[in-house]
Amino acid sequence: MVNVALDAMGGDNAPLEVIKGALDALKLNDSIKIYLLGDEEKIKECMDNVAPIFSSDRLEIVHCSEVIEMAEPPVNAIRRKKDSSIVRGMNLVKEGVCDAFVSAGSTGAVLVGGQILVGRIKGVDRAPLAPLIPTEKGVSILVDCGANVDAKPNQLVQFAKMGSIYMEHVMGIKNPSVGIVNIGAEEEKGNMLVKETFPLLKNCPDINFIGSVEARDIPKGVCDVIVCEAFVGNVILKLYEGVGSTLLKVIKGGLMTSIRSKLGALLVKPALKETMKKFDASEYGGAPLLGLNGLVVKTHGSSKAKEVTTTILQCATFKEADINGKISAKINI
Amino acid sequence: MVNVALDAMGGDNAPLEVIKGALDALKLNDSIKIYLLGDEEKIKECMDNVAPIFSSDRLEIVHCSEVIEMAEPPVNAIRRKKDSSIVRGMNLVKEGVCDAFVSAGSTGAVLVGGQILVGRIKGVDRAPLAPLIPTEKGVSILVDCGANVDAKPNQLVQFAKMGSIYMEHVMGIKNPSVGIVNIGAEEEKGNMLVKETFPLLKNCPDINFIGSVEARDIPKGVCDVIVCEAFVGNVILKLYEGVGSTLLKVIKGGLMTSIRSKLGALLVKPALKETMKKFDASEYGGAPLLGLNGLVVKTHGSSKAKEVTTTILQCATFKEADINGKISAKINI
Repeated sequence: MVNVALDAMGGDNAPLEVIKGALDALKLNDSIKIYLLGDEEKIKECMDNVAPIFSSDRLEIVHCSEVIEMAEPPVNAIRRKKDSSIVRGMNLVKEGVCDAFVSAGSTGAVLVGGQILVGRIKGVDRAPLAPLIPTEKGVSILVDCGANVDAKPNQLVQFAKMGSIYMEHVMGIKNPSVGIVNIGAEEEKGNMLVKETFPLLKNCPDINFIGSVEARDIPKGVCDVIVCEAFVGNVILKLYEGVGSTLLKVIKGGLMTSIRSKLGALLVKPALKETMKKFDASEYGGAPLLGLNGLVVKTHGSSKAKEVTTTILQCATFKEADINGKISAKINI
Repeated sequence: MVNVALDAMGGDNAPLEVIKGALDALKLNDSIKIYLLGDEEKIKECMDNVAPIFSSDRLEIVHCSEVIEMAEPPVNAIRRKKDSSIVRGMNLVKEGVCDAFVSAGSTGAVLVGGQILVGRIKGVDRAPLAPLIPTEKGVSILVDCGANVDAKPNQLVQFAKMGSIYMEHVMGIKNPSVGIVNIGAEEEKGNMLVKETFPLLKNCPDINFIGSVEARDIPKGVCDVIVCEAFVGNVILKLYEGVGSTLLKVIKGGLMTSIRSKLGALLVKPALKETMKKFDASEYGGAPLLGLNGLVVKTHGSSKAKEVTTTILQCATFKEADINGKISAKINI
C-alpha cells in the first residue's frame, strides 16, 4: 500500500476539488490509501454531495481543528498550529504512517514544514522545490524554486542528481538531459556560482549534463532538468506564468476589437483551448520537495481535481520506484 | 545638432534596414546628423536602391574595413579590430564628434566597447544595459541586463537612479515607480543582495521606490523601473522573449488543427497582428547602456527600420534632455 496524506483545506478550490481528486485517484489505483486531513464536518458535507454512497477503507478522514492561512509567516505557523492539516500531514510522513503529503496550501508553510518536520535524507544539504514546467516538447523539471536562496555549487550538483532521478523514474524520461541556467552558452560565461558549478556538473558521472542553457530556450524544452539556485528559479517560474497569462489576456482583448475577429474567435476557441491545455502546468501534477525523508508535494493554489489525482498517482510511482533510496545512493557515493 | 554614429553593419538586416531607419530619422528630425559606419561600397549600393536621389549634409558615410562578428570573443574583438564599425563608432563618441552610438551588432562587443572605449561618467560604478520591455500598460525599463553579474547593493541603487532619469526624461513618464525584483512582496524576503539593497532603495530620496516586485507581475506593468542584477535581468529578458515566441508558435500550430480553426485563424489574423505589435519590444527602441560619457544604444539583432528610427530619435531626446548631466548630478550628490 501507498499511504498518502492529503491536505483537504489547502488551495482556492478546497475542499471540494481536493476530495474529487482523491476519489478519482482511489478509483484509478487500488494500492493507494488516502488520509484526508481537515475540518471533518466540511469534508463530510462535501463527500455527501460528491459521492453520497462512497465507502472505502482506503479513505480515512483525519480531523484537524486548525488551518494555516496563506498570509501567515510560515515558521510561526508551523510552530504554533500543531493541529493544522499541514503540520498533521507532515507528522504522518515523519512517523512513517504515510509515504507522502500533498498540499495546495501556503508554499512557505509546506517548504518550512518539509525541512523542519519531515527532515532531509542523510547527505542531502538542501531540499529543493522542483515544479514541472510545460514546454513545446512536453515538460521539464525546474530545480530549485524553493527557499534555498544563495545556494552553493555542491548543492546545485545535488539538485541535478535528484532532478534526474525524478524525471527518469517518475516521469519516465530515459537518461534525462541536465542544463544549468546561464546568460550565454559558453562555459566561461556566468556569475560566480554558475562558473564554480559548471565544472562540477561536467565531471559528475551520474548525470547527462549538456551545459549552459539560456532562459529563452527553456520554453522550447531544451533539457529535461533545469538547474538553478532558488532566486533565479522562482523568477523563471513566476515569469513563465506571468508572460503566459498576460499574453493570453492581450490576445483575447485583441480578438474582441472587431466583428470579424469576434467571429474568428468563436471558430478558433475549441482548438485554442485544447492547445493551451498542453501548456498548462497543472496538467503535469504538483511540485515535489526533493530529498526529504518521505515525499512532500506542493500543488498549485488553483489546482482542481485533475491535478490532485495526477499528483497522488505520482506519489505512488515515487514510492514504488524507491526514489528516496535512489537519491540516498547517488548523494552518498 | 545631435550627432549619431550608426553601425551600418550590425544585425540580421544590415545594412538595408539600418539605412532605411537612418533616412526616416533624418526626415523626422532635422537637428540630427548621422555618421553611417561600415563598408562604403555596400552602403552606397544600398543607398542607390533605397533613395537614389538622396543627398544631405546630415548624412556622412564613414568607411570601416572590418566587421566584428557575433561569435567573436568581445574583448579580443574590441582590442584587435580597430577599424570595425563598432570600435570606430565608440571612438567618435569618445572624441566628442558624436553624442551617441547605435548598433544592432554583437551585444558583448557593444558592452565591452562602451566600458573600455567610451568610459563611465565619474562616480558611476557600473554601466548597466537597460532594455525597454513591453507590458500590458506600455513599457518598463529593466536595469541591468548587461555584463555586470554579481553586482553590489550600491550599484543597484545607481541603476535605480539612472533608470528613473531615463524613464522620466526620455520616455516621458512622470515620477516613475521603481521596484526591485524579488521572490515575494515582503521586505524580509530575498537573497542577500536584495535584502541589503532594499533599505538603501527605501531610503533613497531621489526615486519613487514601491518595494519588491515579483516576476509574475512584470508583464502587468507593475512598475516603470525594474531593478535587478544582470544575471536575473538577463534571465527575465530572455524568458520574456522565449515564453512569448513559444506560446505564439504553439497557438499558431493549434489553429491549424481543423478546418474550422483554420477559417477562424484567417479572420482573427489582422486583429492579432495589431495586438502583438503592442507587445513587441522592438516597437520601443533599443537598450541604452546607461552611465557612459556619451550614449551607447544596443538595438535588437533582428531590428528593422522602425526600431532604428525610434532609437535615433531617442538619442536626440537623450541629448536634448541632458540625461548625462542629470545622471552625474544625482550620482554625485
